[in-house]
Amino acid sequence: MTSGDSFLRDFATLSAFGATERGGVHREAASEADEAQRRWFEQLLAGRGFTVRYDRIGNQFGLRETVPGAPYVLVGSHLDSQPRGGRYDGAYGVLAAAHAVHRVAGTGGTALNLAVVNWFNEEGSRFTPSMFGSAVFTGALDLDTARDTTDPAGVRVGDRLAAMGQTGTEAPVLADVAAYAEIHIEQGRVLEETGTTIGLVADTWAARKYDLRVLGDQSHTGSTPMADRQDALLGAAHLVVAARALADELSTPDAPLHTSVSRMAVEPNSPVTVAREAVLNLDLRSPDEDLLARADATLHERIPAIERTARVGIEVAGAQRWGVRPFPEAGVELARRAADELGLSHRRISTVAGHDSVHLNAHVPTVMLFVPSVDGISHNEAELTRDDDALAGVELLTAVVRRLAAGEPAGG
Amino acid sequence: MTSGDSFLRDFATLSAFGATERGGVHREAASEADEAQRRWFEQLLAGRGFTVRYDRIGNQFGLRETVPGAPYVLVGSHLDSQPRGGRYDGAYGVLAAAHAVHRVAGTGGTALNLAVVNWFNEEGSRFTPSMFGSAVFTGALDLDTARDTTDPAGVRVGDRLAAMGQTGTEAPVLADVAAYAEIHIEQGRVLEETGTTIGLVADTWAARKYDLRVLGDQSHTGSTPMADRQDALLGAAHLVVAARALADELSTPDAPLHTSVSRMAVEPNSPVTVAREAVLNLDLRSPDEDLLARADATLHERIPAIERTARVGIEVAGAQRWGVRPFPEAGVELARRAADELGLSHRRISTVAGHDSVHLNAHVPTVMLFVPSVDGISHNEAELTRDDDALAGVELLTAVVRRLAAGEPAGG
Repeated sequence: MTSGDSFLRDFATLSAFGATERGGVHREAASEADEAQRRWFEQLLAGRGFTVRYDRIGNQFGLRETVPGAPYVLVGSHLDSQPRGGRYDGAYGVLAAAHAVHRVAGTGGTALNLAVVNWFNEEGSRFTPSMFGSAVFTGALDLDTARDTTDPAGVRVGDRLAAMGQTGTEAPVLADVAAYAEIHIEQGRVLEETGTTIGLVADTWAARKYDLRVLGDQSHTGSTPMADRQDALLGAAHLVVAARALADELSTPDAPLHTSVSRMAVEPNSPVTVAREAVLNLDLRSPDEDLLARADATLHERIPAIERTARVGIEVAGAQRWGVRPFPEAGVELARRAADELGLSHRRISTVAGHDSVHLNAHVPTVMLFVPSVDGISHNEAELTRDDDALAGVELLTAVVRRLAAGEPAGG
Repeated sequence: MTSGDSFLRDFATLSAFGATERGGVHREAASEADEAQRRWFEQLLAGRGFTVRYDRIGNQFGLRETVPGAPYVLVGSHLDSQPRGGRYDGAYGVLAAAHAVHRVAGTGGTALNLAVVNWFNEEGSRFTPSMFGSAVFTGALDLDTARDTTDPAGVRVGDRLAAMGQTGTEAPVLADVAAYAEIHIEQGRVLEETGTTIGLVADTWAARKYDLRVLGDQSHTGSTPMADRQDALLGAAHLVVAARALADELSTPDAPLHTSVSRMAVEPNSPVTVAREAVLNLDLRSPDEDLLARADATLHERIPAIERTARVGIEVAGAQRWGVRPFPEAGVELARRAADELGLSHRRISTVAGHDSVHLNAHVPTVMLFVPSVDGISHNEAELTRDDDALAGVELLTAVVRRLAAGEPAGG
């Protein structure tokens, strides 16, 4: 059996946890399916010579310590999925990390220690925000706040992790990490359309993310005169349409603007009562910071007209924003050399989606790699990466980890 | 103590069940607050000489049988409320019925028996559809279907009623009812603006109610190119905006069109995944059947464009429709004579909101009465009817019940 067969066999086993009828997986953070796959992954790591540790937010680590006291090259991604999500998003990167680290550790002679990580709750569909575990690890999210976060049913993160028995205090902390590497599916079509196997992620698009609260007033959907209504759902609908219009108006081929509203909660959500409140998210993303700022300003200019039209108040809160963030050039170059040695085609690429690596990149030298997604489909049961591409990614990640473990620099 | 004081004291007690901080009530059907008020109402009825009975869908009856074997004059409304609803909607009519029947029964000499009814789940916010208990009573909704209906948490009507111990088989059935009377708050501003105390309800607006399902496809909100998205929430938002546009375009002062979307469920409702599905209601109402038909046709003509714009499919289901429905002229006249005798100002009026009386009106002579709503506010904690108006309504209902009990005709 080749190491490729071994990887594909493990990946098939992993893909059975929370498997859906249409070939995807449904395993939100700390769900029964996520708990089961985490136990399986713990056993896999322990069986291959890793020491398994958890931190207080449930990040799962597999350590290979061969140089006592030396810092770690940390390699990972996340096993949790969106509801009815794809089986590659995150899970591919965690399993690739385990195989890559195992192979590098097996050859010995590394200057640094090695560790695999499965970040808790990257997806953020059950417990917001997304990139939750890596945010706590890097200090971007307060540990107590994170542990007190609840899902829509009122289940608290800290309680659920305690019930799973998957927290601890003996895991590595940020100060122990010398470098971080992550491989992920592209979730776009650039690699496929250009016939490229490897994406060398050079930067992250700029983004602005809002939580919007639309405040109307309850009234009867039948008897209330139209002119008297203060309809929060109508205000929210205008915001959804406005977000899309921004992308249609401002995008150019060189500087696209991506906009979305994907979450909405309506109160009281009754068939005969005009909504008093609607809460929604609204994201703007672009590789062009000037265009993003223009889109943001235009959105804000249009809000008062929506307030007048629907006779509602609109509160803009929870703004998260970041500019175009480069990954360190030394890391991109390190990965490029490794890809060249393996004869793998590659190109520089941007990531639009957020990844755990974005949090790590703010603190330690970070290498981010992509493999192709068929038709760019992601967050969908039809998500697919071809076996050859998946295995090429594992080969490249192994070579990158070997270079990092040898102390080759990946950033300042 | 006058009978008016007695009514207002009982109404204050009733308004404490599920009371909210802002003066409203929050007591959806079969909630703990609804269960508690139903027990209280049972005790009130029993203490005043009524025999209390339940039917299999939890409609609550208080019987005053003085003419063995004769049919009943049935008088009632509903005690359940919208989430954070007003304390008058329904509850006023049930308590007014109890007082009116008690006074008429107390004077004796009636040709017919008398009964009070508290219809189960008129509001429909927890268990759809609305006017649930009266629909089962009149055969518009199948009993087994109704008992198998579940709320969003999966609680089944039949199970919840059994747990409350409030079902039975000894209650009156439709064939036992000679006439029905109901008094309700207007939930509009016509009476207030014309300085009128009593609305003699002459008809119900025509209505068409749809359940719409918008089908998109999940994808990543960040990385998916805008042109590739099949965004169910965007399609739903266009439908909400289109519904409002119909009212703005087609309403005239003589023939208003009321439109609404008040309920929406989004899947997977995740912060980073384009929605694959959105389910919403959409109602059209007008006193002009031709205008309503035109609005309906226009809505359907616009759906294909929305499907193209958002790249979604839209399924139109669950259509309920009814035309302008008159209440029997004999009943309107009977109530007018009673109001004249009491010196109460009155005018003919339409109801836009649905009421249990609409179901009864399809089968038995039915009298429907309104008292004024301050500022027309309803389905809102600020809902208010002035004490003088409330007491005038009880006086009128008493006079109407007395006439009905004497066998005065209210319809064919």
